Parts: sequence; structure tokens; C-alpha cells
Amino acid sequence: MISNQDRPTEKNSSTPLSDEAPHYSITAISQDWLLRARKKIDNKTKPLGSLGRIEELAVQLSAIQESDMPRADRKLLLVFAADHGVTAEGVSAFPSEVTAQMALNFLSGGAAINVFCRHYGIGHYLVDVGVKGDLPDHPLLIKAKIRPGTSNFAREAAMSQEEVRQALWVGADAFLGLYQRTGCDVLGLGEIGIGNTTTAAAIISAATGLPPADVTGRGTGVDDQGLARKIETIARAFKLHRPAPQDGLAILSAVGGFEIAAMCGAMLAAAEKRCCVVLDGLISTAAGLIAWLICPEVAGYMVAGHRSVETGQMPALNKMGLKPVLSLDMRLGEGTGAAIAISLTDLAARLQREMASFEDAGVSGRLPSL
Amino acid sequence: MISNQDRPTEKNSSTPLSDEAPHYSITAISQDWLLRARKKIDNKTKPLGSLGRIEELAVQLSAIQESDMPRADRKLLLVFAADHGVTAEGVSAFPSEVTAQMALNFLSGGAAINVFCRHYGIGHYLVDVGVKGDLPDHPLLIKAKIRPGTSNFAREAAMSQEEVRQALWVGADAFLGLYQRTGCDVLGLGEIGIGNTTTAAAIISAATGLPPADVTGRGTGVDDQGLARKIETIARAFKLHRPAPQDGLAILSAVGGFEIAAMCGAMLAAAEKRCCVVLDGLISTAAGLIAWLICPEVAGYMVAGHRSVETGQMPALNKMGLKPVLSLDMRLGEGTGAAIAISLTDLAARLQREMASFEDAGVSGRLPSL
Repeated sequence: MISNQDRPTEKNSSTPLSDEAPHYSITAISQDWLLRARKKIDNKTKPLGSLGRIEELAVQLSAIQESDMPRADRKLLLVFAADHGVTAEGVSAFPSEVTAQMALNFLSGGAAINVFCRHYGIGHYLVDVGVKGDLPDHPLLIKAKIRPGTSNFAREAAMSQEEVRQALWVGADAFLGLYQRTGCDVLGLGEIGIGNTTTAAAIISAATGLPPADVTGRGTGVDDQGLARKIETIARAFKLHRPAPQDGLAILSAVGGFEIAAMCGAMLAAAEKRCCVVLDGLISTAAGLIAWLICPEVAGYMVAGHRSVETGQMPALNKMGLKPVLSLDMRLGEGTGAAIAISLTDLAARLQREMASFEDAGVSGRLPSL
Repeated sequence: MISNQDRPTEKNSSTPLSDEAPHYSITAISQDWLLRARKKIDNKTKPLGSLGRIEELAVQLSAIQESDMPRADRKLLLVFAADHGVTAEGVSAFPSEVTAQMALNFLSGGAAINVFCRHYGIGHYLVDVGVKGDLPDHPLLIKAKIRPGTSNFAREAAMSQEEVRQALWVGADAFLGLYQRTGCDVLGLGEIGIGNTTTAAAIISAATGLPPADVTGRGTGVDDQGLARKIETIARAFKLHRPAPQDGLAILSAVGGFEIAAMCGAMLAAAEKRCCVVLDGLISTAAGLIAWLICPEVAGYMVAGHRSVETGQMPALNKMGLKPVLSLDMRLGEGTGAAIAISLTDLAARLQREMASFEDAGVSGRLPSL
């Protein structure tokens, strides 16, 4: 998994990556397979392009798997949980303790994402990368706490470079362990972490160069004052440390979150294994943007599952050339939007496998003239 | 099922309904239950409103079923098929024969909607209301042909008033037969019928008063000339017969389709049985608009499953006060958009049943402060 080739060319600029940074060997998805899969779906018994986004998912899956018969029935969703030191600035409507409470709610099966994953047959696990407070042993919990929450990035670096590296590996290991056990065609990313919309907005602002005000939203529901505080906090952090926009690892260290770094590691590991990676809302998109800075080829494996109502998400998706599949006015996180989109990738794969082509139908004399 | 009370008040105007027209006794969904269900979902362990459209579906289902534990696991989708005399005007990219071929493709399990319904566990049947050509006996086929295609509405009425009545009953009977056999919580509507985007546009133009050009699209993919021909054909029909905009049955007789009238009958029967009714794209929305003219209370039972790329759909949905759940750039029909939306109603019901409330979590000491 360690190689140095695939970094974006603009990376060879002012701020070099640490020598210890993990590197990934992800192959860009095949243009030939994209064309071949497009040809296959264009031969199905329907007007050209009439299944819209579902066709695009089918074509992407075929190209990722280099297969005319793609599958997305081995479905996995990882929810990464961690706390954020920046909550000390009063950026969230909820106290940090709620992260652990939400994690416990997940473990007892009562969170929204549990219902979504049960409904769509998606294996789901929680990874504790940095929750404040101890979580009990549980078959759905992967314990990999780095530290009980990042430092307050308005005052110091959120985490050390070593912690960035650790968090990336936590994500990769969580995925690879499950991958080896059950296999995986499609991986969804979710998160729990009070304060993480502030962290995600800071990451997106740092990586896109857009002012904090343009990419910061209300998260779990702060009022106007709370929103102003979020924006001001990010602006203040950038006076303290302003990582180069192309240096994903430096951005994580300065203003990142443990769960976001871990998601990033999981995505890169999944793409290496030729899994489709389904993003959820703002937080996973921020993680995706860092993954893309580290290794731009990962974008071919990504599906933007869901359009969040958080304003920071679209600029980040635009930078990666991704377009959200669903738009359901959701802003819960946990991977809920990703879960629905995963079921659509599964549907799309099935469509590519099972729907009749004009030839199929022609052989049986049924659709010769269509 | 036959009662006269529930027609819209504006119906008591210039063009009275035929005495033989079927009438429906559909109770408006309960405002009290809407509030009660909203209160329940607002108590779940998530920020208020953060599951967007999924919450709205959960609330609507609770109100339809008058239950705190709504279900949408008994899922049914009916695909109504018929031909359209107006194809003689050259309004479609495909010849009428393709309707029967697509119907056969459905019966052999190779159509898109078969894949969608298998994927989401939706019982699906084809109803032949007026396909040109004979279809073989098949366990998935309900044979109820009125006539092999409507008359060309650019030259004469598409169907007689008696045929309108028959087609409404075909739809109602198809639904009620299956309802008695297996029960049904949610009914999706789909269709197959070459020429039916022209018919649907004519219906929507007649019912909304919008000019044909504003509500007519490219259907299966006609070119600019074909589009102009569709618009001109509808305009010509309205010189011949222009039904009053509030008279749903007269609109069906003048410019309707057998499958559209049957869908309308199925929707009204389903709403009488307190089933949720999920519309698909342009055609089922046109049918929904007629159902709404006949009995406006039906709107409370309807979910606009999917935003079609066809321009006529939105004005019709706006008239009924409905907002599409999904927007996936699809324009295939067959019920494909409805099928996905059905899976979301099932998910929403499950959410209302299974997701923890603050009280649930509070009891176990887990989420007291959220």
C-alpha cells in the first residue's frame, strides 16, 4: 500500500509531505471499461440514457470492477466517531458528551443509520478513533482510539503529523480487516462527532481557498450567533496555521478530525481494493477531498451519495468533479445518505447484470424493432 | 365505493359529470395524526428535521394508516399497458408495436422495472388495458383489454364515456384483487404505452390550462421536429374538443389513454383502502391529476416518487401540492422512479417504528442531555 507515485502533480510544490506519510497505489479506473460498460447499458431495452443517474452508477461500477457483470451486494458502512477540541469555542448546539451518547445509541441499534443499514442489508460497524469517554466492548465496535478528541484547532494544531498517520491507518485497517473477512464491493462512510461540521468546513476552506463564511453551515442547528462563531473560529485558526491548499496531510494536522482522517484512510484502502466508495454528507466529503489531494485517482472510485444542506459540500464535490446522486434535504450524517446511495449502486449493478438487451430480446423474437 | 360527496366543489360547474361516473369515498388524511406523527419523529435521537424527505414520508404514512407504527412492507407495483391512437400523427420515436414488445419483455422478467421490483421486494404485475396485439397467459399478467388502443384524439374522442368508466374499474379491480390476496401498504404505478407522453401532456394541458408547448417533452426521444409535431397535434385536438379543466372524466374521454384511466382508478381504490399511492413520472402524474380532480382528498395519500425530466410533470404536481422525492434524471417510465420511492417509504415507516427516541435512550441512561 505504500508507494509514492500517485500524488497530484501540484503536490510537488512549496509544502512537501512528511516522509512518514502513507502513500497509496490506486489505479485510475479504466476509460476503456467506461466505454464498454456504457455500450452495454446503451443496448438495454430502454430509450438511451433514460435511467439517468442509475446508468451512471452501473457504468462506474463496471469500470471499477472491470466486469460486465458488476456486483454491489457485499455492502459495508463504517461509522467513524471522534470528538473535536474546537467545541471549546462554542461552535456546536450540543456538548461533546453527545458523541459518546450517539455512539452508544448506535451500539444499541437505535440510531438512524442502524435502521437504514438494516433496511438495505448493509453491514455496519462503529470505529472509535477518538471519542471522549469509554465505550463498552461490543461486536459492532472497533476500538482504535488515538486520543479522546483532537486539540482545539483555534489555538493549536488539531493533531500531530504522527497522529494523522495513525488515524489514516485506523481507517485503512478497519476496512481491510472487514474486507478480508467478508469481502466488500461497496463501502459507505459515515461519522459521529459533535463539532465536526466546523472541522469539515475548515478543511474545505483550507483545501479550496474559499472563505470560511462560504463553506460553513448550521450543523446540528446552531442559531445565527452560533454560525457567526463557527466562521470566526475557523478564520482565527487560519491566522494561527494556514496549511498549503494542496497538502492534505498538513490540513488534517492543522484543522482536521480523527474520524475524518480515518475515513480518508478507509477510502484510500477501499479504492486500492477496487471497492466503490460512497460518500455521505459534508464530513465524509471533506474526508474525500483530502483523499483526493493525497491520491487524485481515488475520485474514479467515489460516488457522492447525497447532497447535504450544508453549504460546504458542493464546492468540495465540484473540486473533485463529483455530482451528488440523491437530494433528500437530509443533514443528519452517520452515513444515512450514503446508505440509500449504496442501495442504488446495488440496484445499478443488478440492472447491468439482469436487464435484457435488445439482442437478448431479439433472440427470443420479442423486441426486434426497438 | 360509489358515493358522490367527495368531488371538488369547483366540479359543480358548467360541465356536469355523467351520471354513470364512479365516485369515491376517500377520507382526507387526519391533521391530528400528521401532528402526532410529527411529534413522534421530532423526539427521535437526531437534530430536528435532519432526515428531510424521509421524515415527511414517515409522517405521511403514519397519518394515512393512523398508526404510530406504520408499515410499508407490503409493496405492490402495477404496470398498466395500452396503445394510443394518436401515434398515427407521428408523435413517437417508436411504432405502436413496441408496446406489446415491452409488455412481453416485462413478462419475461427483462424490463428495467422487473429488476427494480426484484431488488426492492415489490410485487409487480402487468395489466393489459388496451395493448394492440395479444399477450400470452402469464401469472404476472392481468388481462383486461378494453380495446386495442384508443382512437386518435387529434380526430375524435380517445374513448367513449363508457370506456372511461370501464378503464377506471379495470384499475380499481386490479388493485382490489391483489389487495384481497396479499394486502398492500403502498402501491406504485407504472405504465407502458407508446405515444403516452403525448396523451399525458394533453391531459395536463387540459387540466391546468397551460399551453401544450409548456407541458410537452421529448418522451422516448423525438427530435425537434417530432416535438413540434406533438405540440401541434395536441393543439389541433383542443380545436376539436376542449373539455372543461375541472372535469377529469371528460378530459379522459377526449384526450386520455386506457392505461392512464386505469391508473387513476387504481389510485382511487388504493386511497379508499388507506394505501399510500406512489406516482412515477409524467404519465402516472397525469393520471394522479385526474384522480385529484375526481376526488381531491386522494392527494393526502399520494407520494410524488420521482421528478421526471419531462416538462409537463411539475405543473401537474404543483397543482396537487406535491413535491417529488427523488430526482435521478430518469425518464423511462414503467414505474422505475416509483419503485425506488417505494423503498424509501418502506425505510421511512421502519424509521418511525425502530429508531430510538430521546425517551427510549433516556430510559437506558444513554441520551439524557441530547
